[in-house]
Amino acid sequence: MRLETKRLFSTLDISVEEVRGLIDFARSIKSGRAKVDLFNKVCALIFFNPSVRTRISCESAMARYGGHGIAISPGRDTWNFECGERVVMDGNTQEHVRELAPVITRMCHVVGIRKSELITVGSDKADVTGSYAELAKDEFIHRFAEFAEVPVINLESNRWHPMQGLADSTTMVEKLGETRGKKYVLTWAWHPKSLPVATPHSQLLSAANLGMDVTVLRPDGWALDPEVMAAARERTEAQGGSLQETADIGAAYSGAQVVCAKAWGSLDYYGRFEEEAKAKAPLRKEWVVDTDKMAKTDNAFFMHCLPVRRNIVVTDDVLDSNSSAVIDEAENRLWTAAAVLGALTS
Amino acid sequence: MRLETKRLFSTLDISVEEVRGLIDFARSIKSGRAKVDLFNKVCALIFFNPSVRTRISCESAMARYGGHGIAISPGRDTWNFECGERVVMDGNTQEHVRELAPVITRMCHVVGIRKSELITVGSDKADVTGSYAELAKDEFIHRFAEFAEVPVINLESNRWHPMQGLADSTTMVEKLGETRGKKYVLTWAWHPKSLPVATPHSQLLSAANLGMDVTVLRPDGWALDPEVMAAARERTEAQGGSLQETADIGAAYSGAQVVCAKAWGSLDYYGRFEEEAKAKAPLRKEWVVDTDKMAKTDNAFFMHCLPVRRNIVVTDDVLDSNSSAVIDEAENRLWTAAAVLGALTS
Amino acid sequence: MRLETKRLFSTLDISVEEVRGLIDFARSIKSGRAKVDLFNKVCALIFFNPSVRTRISCESAMARYGGHGIAISPGRDTWNFECGERVVMDGNTQEHVRELAPVITRMCHVVGIRKSELITVGSDKADVTGSYAELAKDEFIHRFAEFAEVPVINLESNRWHPMQGLADSTTMVEKLGETRGKKYVLTWAWHPKSLPVATPHSQLLSAANLGMDVTVLRPDGWALDPEVMAAARERTEAQGGSLQETADIGAAYSGAQVVCAKAWGSLDYYGRFEEEAKAKAPLRKEWVVDTDKMAKTDNAFFMHCLPVRRNIVVTDDVLDSNSSAVIDEAENRLWTAAAVLGALTS
Repeated sequence: MRLETKRLFSTLDISVEEVRGLIDFARSIKSGRAKVDLFNKVCALIFFNPSVRTRISCESAMARYGGHGIAISPGRDTWNFECGERVVMDGNTQEHVRELAPVITRMCHVVGIRKSELITVGSDKADVTGSYAELAKDEFIHRFAEFAEVPVINLESNRWHPMQGLADSTTMVEKLGETRGKKYVLTWAWHPKSLPVATPHSQLLSAANLGMDVTVLRPDGWALDPEVMAAARERTEAQGGSLQETADIGAAYSGAQVVCAKAWGSLDYYGRFEEEAKAKAPLRKEWVVDTDKMAKTDNAFFMHCLPVRRNIVVTDDVLDSNSSAVIDEAENRLWTAAAVLGALTS
Repeated sequence: MRLETKRLFSTLDISVEEVRGLIDFARSIKSGRAKVDLFNKVCALIFFNPSVRTRISCESAMARYGGHGIAISPGRDTWNFECGERVVMDGNTQEHVRELAPVITRMCHVVGIRKSELITVGSDKADVTGSYAELAKDEFIHRFAEFAEVPVINLESNRWHPMQGLADSTTMVEKLGETRGKKYVLTWAWHPKSLPVATPHSQLLSAANLGMDVTVLRPDGWALDPEVMAAARERTEAQGGSLQETADIGAAYSGAQVVCAKAWGSLDYYGRFEEEAKAKAPLRKEWVVDTDKMAKTDNAFFMHCLPVRRNIVVTDDVLDSNSSAVIDEAENRLWTAAAVLGALTS
Repeated sequence: MRLETKRLFSTLDISVEEVRGLIDFARSIKSGRAKVDLFNKVCALIFFNPSVRTRISCESAMARYGGHGIAISPGRDTWNFECGERVVMDGNTQEHVRELAPVITRMCHVVGIRKSELITVGSDKADVTGSYAELAKDEFIHRFAEFAEVPVINLESNRWHPMQGLADSTTMVEKLGETRGKKYVLTWAWHPKSLPVATPHSQLLSAANLGMDVTVLRPDGWALDPEVMAAARERTEAQGGSLQETADIGAAYSGAQVVCAKAWGSLDYYGRFEEEAKAKAPLRKEWVVDTDKMAKTDNAFFMHCLPVRRNIVVTDDVLDSNSSAVIDEAENRLWTAAAVLGALTS
């Protein structure tokens, strides 16, 4: 399989047919029916934020099919890249993306970039580095791709995490077969930190790309990005699916075939983490995914991107039951990475 | 060669015959008589502590035979894994080993883990993170292996460092041929820090696995773990060897064919590093391995796991003499790593 | 192609004919006419200082031709190596290069080392770790190579950066064809930091190795190392070229075919960075490479090793014009790395 696009910032950069093609390709690789040719290909993996799953899935995929991944951690504090135009660089930026992008992309066949300023590191709250509206522009990866000479994959930005979304779609096709007419619930969960929205955004698209009946279950004040909601609605409705939002836990779980849990921080409260913590404190008990809630579904399986805080987001009972798909979902990160890397470099 | 075990925490996890098999395999690889097939295999190397020799030996072994090693440094302070059962994860642990282990082991063919809380970093004393008895349980690697779907190799825990032990055994077979009836002395050495006991424990086994006459030479108060001593005694006696402890330097060196030096901290003093430093201060001069001591041996060769502090643990004269085996011993880390990785994944 | 030398600290370690051979080899690899055989070869890449370009070029070169690069970052602060003779190692050095070098080189086929104490990290001035005269001895890499059993490549020391020099030479041959009789200007540039001299030293040699008419354009007080100047003069004069120094900007640019810009700190002021900053403040405007200066040349192309501070060292106009060679120059880091790695290990 070959993808024509030179950028995969989200699955909105490719068609629904191409998403389907990648899922099929990933499943064929997993079953040994298809081979990926990454022989002597090199993938630069630039991690501004820590990574375990994403790095191992991409680096393992490269290695299994004859290629090589180079993981680079510029580090938030060590050195800074400039994206602005006509800037006099006498401050703390040392290299312009106009040089960085062509240089790295002349040396490598494909580049993956993780850069999220919304991720909280080592404390209960994130540094406030801008407004959500500003951060959601994901300027660095856009500018990098503008000057890149090879394909660029988003390994998690402020707005999107498409590799997680593709793994989730693959898992659902694997478990459900036909996905149209199936009810997918993306449920917000309480968490001690205010986590980024990139993953729930791409998970929303993972179901919308499959034309499912999608329900976003979240408390008032924790809406996802309205532009992302609109794009997901458009994608799923074009295939006969639907999209709705609710704060009614019982109604949402009822009849669901898939329950995907994710904690995320409020965009409304962004930058006022202590206020948010107070506002969400009463929600802690009620939103945990447990066997009572799962019993209301139509034998739904449980998804989560991992890492997951046990007995906070979901109980041990659910996670250790046969209805948990989290390990298969994580494994599919490997096979979808292989599919994407192969399709972008062939 | 193929190993059936799914865990190599210490060489006690395999039989003496399997240890012999690995030594032969390592020597055959070294001489070019045997090939290891690691083609398109991926090994995750998880280092909670720094590493040079272990990382290069494993990563080089993977690469030389067609595979790939992914070195990951979670870092002590950056993020924490949970091992406990039914824990409500609202503290500083973010991921449970029940997820971590199956996820990583679905993406890789074998996993190596270094996690030692006893290692001193950047100062004269280690953080006190528990009692020795508690740390010696090596909970993380045991729990990881419990949920792993591929073999797990210990790259140094609080109690064991089997890859060092196997390299030492290989070096002794290489130099001595028949090892039974030969006298092996593991001598304690003074060192400014209180170093971990994992390496001397595995070095003790390296000789016990070969049925040697083993002498542990150490001052009163610096005994090794009694359970480890008992296991080593059992292994060597079953092959006609012996194990004894002494504080008599002259008697220990007399008639030795191998002198292996290693500094280690006292288990009795664990957590009271300043007291220990005072108690060991008078021992500094007397315990250095020098040419006078080596002259009392039966032409013994000198071993050390490296890195070694010159003129503290051993004098330049000994280290730069023909009787030093330390470079060959370190090189054998590569060949034994290739043997272990090949045998566990074939 | 095969190089006999076991060390590439600077291109002074090889003959002018060998430099020419490496350039031809790099160009042949780039065009696909030649293959490099790095099959199952392992290269250790030891970075005491941060690296993007050097690491990616070397690791990508290894991977493209069947080998593997292992990037290791000992870090300045984490652990220290001892180079001295007969030292009693009871201080903060933990491993002697007499052990480190043979051990690493028994496990790998070639080693690259970056160790520069002159590099400024994270602030406006470098730590003062010694006099320039002392640092220019590059003791660590010399001692490492003395005890190494495989070839050692300098990936930037205090005095030299030969991999940059070879990429620059390759770029000039590519753009100019015949290089003899062509005027090369290495111009100093103002920069907020006092940068190391290793790169301008090797850039000077990059033109001297090609027998060019070399002009070093720099303010009074910013002379390069006189021994380096003498070596460059000897190399270029032996081939009919010339070497001169001037502070006359107009005269230097006039008739130039190549303008290579580089900021560097004053050796005279070394360790007195605030004094230097005051002394160079008036030079800021005058020394920027801009279109007016480039217009005085004989259609010169512009070179820089990158990263470059835009509108400080060079204006956007020049950098974004067709006369800029900086991206090709950086790309050639890959092909010259492949040539050097192949030639040293074949």
